[in-house]
Amino acid sequence: MPLVRALNFTISLDGFGTGEGLSFEEPFGHAGHRLHEWMFATRFGRALFGQPGGGMGVDDAFAERHGVGFGAEIMGRGKFTPQTGPWTDVGTDEEWRGWWGANPPFHTPVFVLTHHPRPSFELEGGNVFHFIDASPQEALDVAREAAGDLDVRIGGGPSMLRDFLAAGLIDVLHVVQVPILLGRGVRLWDGLEGLESRHSVETVASPSGVTHLTFTRR
Amino acid sequence: MPLVRALNFTISLDGFGTGEGLSFEEPFGHAGHRLHEWMFATRFGRALFGQPGGGMGVDDAFAERHGVGFGAEIMGRGKFTPQTGPWTDVGTDEEWRGWWGANPPFHTPVFVLTHHPRPSFELEGGNVFHFIDASPQEALDVAREAAGDLDVRIGGGPSMLRDFLAAGLIDVLHVVQVPILLGRGVRLWDGLEGLESRHSVETVASPSGVTHLTFTRR
Repeated sequence: MPLVRALNFTISLDGFGTGEGLSFEEPFGHAGHRLHEWMFATRFGRALFGQPGGGMGVDDAFAERHGVGFGAEIMGRGKFTPQTGPWTDVGTDEEWRGWWGANPPFHTPVFVLTHHPRPSFELEGGNVFHFIDASPQEALDVAREAAGDLDVRIGGGPSMLRDFLAAGLIDVLHVVQVPILLGRGVRLWDGLEGLESRHSVETVASPSGVTHLTFTRR
Repeated sequence: MPLVRALNFTISLDGFGTGEGLSFEEPFGHAGHRLHEWMFATRFGRALFGQPGGGMGVDDAFAERHGVGFGAEIMGRGKFTPQTGPWTDVGTDEEWRGWWGANPPFHTPVFVLTHHPRPSFELEGGNVFHFIDASPQEALDVAREAAGDLDVRIGGGPSMLRDFLAAGLIDVLHVVQVPILLGRGVRLWDGLEGLESRHSVETVASPSGVTHLTFTRR
């Protein structure tokens, strides 16, 4: 049975999965790159930018699972773009196609949740972006169909991940906690009282300073 | 130079230092005992109840520092009592003198912050409770004077600890994070954006499942 997994989802010590003031220049708002420095220091993270080297310890072991065994990703619109409301650029020369360049690191169908559906498009490497207005369960049904025998990745951001957790749809949640206090932004944990009763939790502190928490459905 | 330290302050994964609905029966509200089970499993924690045994690993090493090297404690009124507003029991046979019985585990002067001062009282073991209406800095000045060459313990709860952190008064903060989601209560981290810039942070995951975070002033 394929699993539904959310991996490498990074939050600050005070629980924010993104900062305030998201824009094209600052996809994570005032958080800047601070939430993901741990990943950029791994071999996996450096390879994303075509660079050699990088750590190969516990942070890398967790990070590289991003690419293994998935047949589809579901992401919130906020992960795809800082734009809100109706699309004004679709069909123009300025059409936004995500942060990830010509060959995004998903290599599967990607389902973007939005109240404003738009035409699908395809990029290199098997990346096909679809835009659907659907509940978490409906979106998961569509993504499972696309993923076949492989797992479905729940890609975030924090609001959509929280919705999927609240709906009880996630089998494995891997959260990375960075020891910084962002103070503001979007929290992951709001409204999830008792989540631990449905999952076992394993915690490991990395020498890099981050903490990896893995929630596995009981 | 004596230090100002807050130790073994325990929060849920979503950052709550206490739950909702505090009462004499439930000092931590709906959190119950869940925040402190890690401590009750240590030798230190069992000894508080006159019981032998208990773990002597990393959790115990952190826990037992509670009693070593302090000359005074400052606590918020919420740690002393769930009562709010003017005292109605002081001077009566029903007078509340804290949760800790005849010989509390402080063994120093204890300064309780309250907007409603009341007469001091003394219990066994060097425990003298004072009640003062003071700012964090004013309270610290009084407690330092009482502590002499020893350190001052900042005892919590979460609101007063946050105030002392925001005022930059804490040299060492040891937080224990329990992998449960309380969902509601009083958060420790609110309004402390950038705290890590003034402290170095060390994280260790205990085999018990809790995570110890130590903030040391740079």
